[in-house]
Amino acid sequence: MAERGLDSVGHTPTDPMALAIGAAGRAGALGEVPVGAVVVRAGRILAVGHNRPRAAHDPTAHAEMIAIREAAAVIGDERLTGCDLYVTLEPCTMCAAAISFARIRRLYYGAADPKGGAVESGVRFFQAPTCHHAPEIYGGIREREAAELLRSFFAERR
Amino acid sequence: MAERGLDSVGHTPTDPMALAIGAAGRAGALGEVPVGAVVVRAGRILAVGHNRPRAAHDPTAHAEMIAIREAAAVIGDERLTGCDLYVTLEPCTMCAAAISFARIRRLYYGAADPKGGAVESGVRFFQAPTCHHAPEIYGGIREREAAELLRSFFAERR
Repeated sequence: MAERGLDSVGHTPTDPMALAIGAAGRAGALGEVPVGAVVVRAGRILAVGHNRPRAAHDPTAHAEMIAIREAAAVIGDERLTGCDLYVTLEPCTMCAAAISFARIRRLYYGAADPKGGAVESGVRFFQAPTCHHAPEIYGGIREREAAELLRSFFAERR
Repeated sequence: MAERGLDSVGHTPTDPMALAIGAAGRAGALGEVPVGAVVVRAGRILAVGHNRPRAAHDPTAHAEMIAIREAAAVIGDERLTGCDLYVTLEPCTMCAAAISFARIRRLYYGAADPKGGAVESGVRFFQAPTCHHAPEIYGGIREREAAELLRSFFAERR
């Protein structure tokens, strides 16, 4: 899965969430909280990112931020018009706002995150009056696998 | 002011908000919305950033994000313990959450932003149950100058 995630950049994905889960697994193997994200446009993978704030010494280095920044660099535009984001965990407040700024068309996510999420949890940013673009939202995609990665990661650390 | 902002990196600031306003002015001169930010620790400027999403092709390239990422790189830690952030405009939802993740100690900001802010406006992130670290907050610092930069920038574009 890890190899497939990397190899599939630029190719038509059969399942972008599988690539995101693969990226999450790589994060976990590196000691980072296992969350992965993929940006897709017109069937083409533009970017794959995983959580890496510790290694990068960057508190903003969440999977979604990395994938969004890379996709924007690839297409040379701050707006990811027509792009969809797949992420294994409900985006946090920072990432939800970044998704809005990037004009992501559709957001697909795995597990909900009651403690830190901002889509169905917390500030529910996409419903806030200060949110000026909201994507179409599809939660619970391959939720069990995404949540299991997180559960086993934190269980090992106890 | 512009030169002073750059030259003062690493030196004791007499007024970090003046440096942030200088950075905001540089953003405006480049055609970016004029917002500037500075990270300070123990009287030392660690980073100066200004808004540049257009030039950087990066929807996350807000002044605060740039200053936080640079300061974290400088100190080699994802947590900016003991660091204070000065920014000319009330932080947006994305930046407020990044400020929280970075463990910023004190947040000083200039003008309020009812349309996009997330401190005293919008989702008021630092008061949300999904916010796990809130800085001390001081708003309205050199508010008139910061707001005037924004007003004249948008007036010229109409």
